[in-house]
Amino acid sequence: MTRNLPTSPARIGEDIEALAAITEPDRPYTRRAFTPTFLKGREWLTARFAAAGLETRIDAAGNLIGRRAGAKPDLGTIMLGSHSDTVPDGGRYDGVAGVSAALEVARALADQGIVLDHDLEIVDFLAEEVSIFGVSCVGSRGMTGQRPDEWLAREAEGLSLKRGIDEAGGHAAATLTRNDIVAFLELHIEQGPVLEAESLDVGVVTAIAGITRIEIVVEGRADHAGTTPMGHRQDALAAASWIVLAVERFARELASGPAHFAATVGEFRMEPNAANVVPAKVTMLIDARAEDRADMDRFLAELETGIQAIAAETGVTVAPLRVISDNMPTPCDPGLLDILDAACGTAGARHRRMASGAGHDTAWLARVTKAAMIFVPCAGGRSHTPEESAKVEDIALGAAVLMEAVRRIDTGEGL
Amino acid sequence: MTRNLPTSPARIGEDIEALAAITEPDRPYTRRAFTPTFLKGREWLTARFAAAGLETRIDAAGNLIGRRAGAKPDLGTIMLGSHSDTVPDGGRYDGVAGVSAALEVARALADQGIVLDHDLEIVDFLAEEVSIFGVSCVGSRGMTGQRPDEWLAREAEGLSLKRGIDEAGGHAAATLTRNDIVAFLELHIEQGPVLEAESLDVGVVTAIAGITRIEIVVEGRADHAGTTPMGHRQDALAAASWIVLAVERFARELASGPAHFAATVGEFRMEPNAANVVPAKVTMLIDARAEDRADMDRFLAELETGIQAIAAETGVTVAPLRVISDNMPTPCDPGLLDILDAACGTAGARHRRMASGAGHDTAWLARVTKAAMIFVPCAGGRSHTPEESAKVEDIALGAAVLMEAVRRIDTGEGL
Repeated sequence: MTRNLPTSPARIGEDIEALAAITEPDRPYTRRAFTPTFLKGREWLTARFAAAGLETRIDAAGNLIGRRAGAKPDLGTIMLGSHSDTVPDGGRYDGVAGVSAALEVARALADQGIVLDHDLEIVDFLAEEVSIFGVSCVGSRGMTGQRPDEWLAREAEGLSLKRGIDEAGGHAAATLTRNDIVAFLELHIEQGPVLEAESLDVGVVTAIAGITRIEIVVEGRADHAGTTPMGHRQDALAAASWIVLAVERFARELASGPAHFAATVGEFRMEPNAANVVPAKVTMLIDARAEDRADMDRFLAELETGIQAIAAETGVTVAPLRVISDNMPTPCDPGLLDILDAACGTAGARHRRMASGAGHDTAWLARVTKAAMIFVPCAGGRSHTPEESAKVEDIALGAAVLMEAVRRIDTGEGL
Repeated sequence: MTRNLPTSPARIGEDIEALAAITEPDRPYTRRAFTPTFLKGREWLTARFAAAGLETRIDAAGNLIGRRAGAKPDLGTIMLGSHSDTVPDGGRYDGVAGVSAALEVARALADQGIVLDHDLEIVDFLAEEVSIFGVSCVGSRGMTGQRPDEWLAREAEGLSLKRGIDEAGGHAAATLTRNDIVAFLELHIEQGPVLEAESLDVGVVTAIAGITRIEIVVEGRADHAGTTPMGHRQDALAAASWIVLAVERFARELASGPAHFAATVGEFRMEPNAANVVPAKVTMLIDARAEDRADMDRFLAELETGIQAIAAETGVTVAPLRVISDNMPTPCDPGLLDILDAACGTAGARHRRMASGAGHDTAWLARVTKAAMIFVPCAGGRSHTPEESAKVEDIALGAAVLMEAVRRIDTGEGL
């Protein structure tokens, strides 16, 4: 379908190609926060922001901001943004699609000579992905006063997080509290298969799922694999296999309900991991995501009961569940959701509401201002891999939705 | 029970304590073949052999041999032995119990002034455990012409296996074919829980199980753990868990038959093993042991059918089974088994026949001469760990069984 869009797929394509070229050469696409490659990407983006007529700066939290002044700056700031850092061996679109779409809104407004009442800020948040320091969303937490102070002392690759933020142009010692943000919007690739499978253009994100990480430790006994009769074993791997299947079964049950739910055993470590020794110990890490907190509570309760039943059945010992981290779901702003639905209608984007199973900077902004986000399709739902792929036309359509939403927010429609 | 044994628990205890003290100091008990610690142990053993009146030498394959001359040396050699090397972080009894028991037979014969007709040789085989070169039973294979020539070029820790054998006092370039061995007997700790559980003194080993190692590779798809709906996944770990449980189920079925069977998934590696990524690949290594080859053939057939059914059910890809190594079971000599049963009766040892699930030097000797072995109990069946434990009284009783068997072999009774 050819659409008459106010936004330019070609300019978005240029942004994405230029940033894709700024990668660790031997492992595309890698532009991890705090690395020289990342700073090179930032340099390119800063020039690109400036070329779009934006007034650029790095805030104290290390975020790159391009500002387009409004006619009535006292009204506050409408903010659009995402992130330009990647995971190792990541893709070209995760984060960058959103930065480019936000920038494209600014360019399209300039094309049409539109001056908003509000200030408009385009943001490239620092270190959204899990960084070399083991923490994520460093910039969006920092901008909103939610970055734990003790993080600054973290060290990696001969650098502290504090110095990393300062070298990115920030000022880590300063506390930042933005209270001028009227609304925040982010565009991101879906990183899942739903929009593509349903031939839709845009997902209007109702909530960012809560993420709970749970460690399970199974302790059996290291016996000789050749000489220990099958009936005399306490095989930690066999017990752990029952647990993996229980996690999958509980997750499927909850996922069949109305709200998004997923659980994955992503890390699995076995000891001693020797060919001729009965497995003595398995440590696994479960990643569970719930749009509705009640689902997570049910999951944790069912899992606790389930693992103790498996322990009793198999003769191993399983410690009580250890919740390593536990973040609540973050609902997006209902008023912004209505605006985004309406903007999809105006822009001609086939859309649905859906939850985000992944974490995003939007979740941190949502705690201090009205915030929402939209998804655009990506091929096969693949993400965090060099094969990650999205269409610039889809991103441009998403940017047109953002632009229409910004126009409505600016005039106070529906908010 | 106090028995009037011809063998001395005290001397055996001295042997075991002295060798236990020769260990890498920070990881008892470690005396890996080809290391300076091992050679130090050998030095002590050589002196101990000599003190028992044995004529000591190192053969071309690097085995330490202590000879007690017989009255009619043309009759050939009766050989007793085991090994003094250990696994890393191993125990005090695996191997050493057998070397000490063999030595104790020679000492007890000397105590009683008995001169055998046959020559008697006490052997400490080189490198029974998987050595730094990744191969095992180096000495017993070497003594019997079964050591692959290409092994000599293997390198580890700045050493070739060839140089390692030569530094141990052997002559790796020479081929050794002993055709004078009339019978070989080995005592070893059971490394399993059966004798202890059944309150028995001795296991007369009917066969050394064949060992088959099988690699299974499960390929799923790395998707985002938060955003990929449960129904859209190809989770390699979930599929691998079904396979682990199938291995266990098939093994239990076969183990319920008359012959020893065991199978263990001892190695299990998952990729990418990242908290927020659906597992893409699992590689596992199965260690299967069968006293009866027909059981192994059934296991392989059931497993191949089973994994393809699991692949079809779960949507992952599983490559056909890859057999990494495949050794046939080795039956012990029936005549020697009868002699050992009778010797147990004479020595007052409560005994049963049983298969060995572990590999032993006896399996290599059995291919060129009449060979058999006996087990003595070890605490909890534990082995290859510093907690490995056996009673010197049990080892002395086992040595008395060996001594009685040697006497019967020497006079031609039953052989």
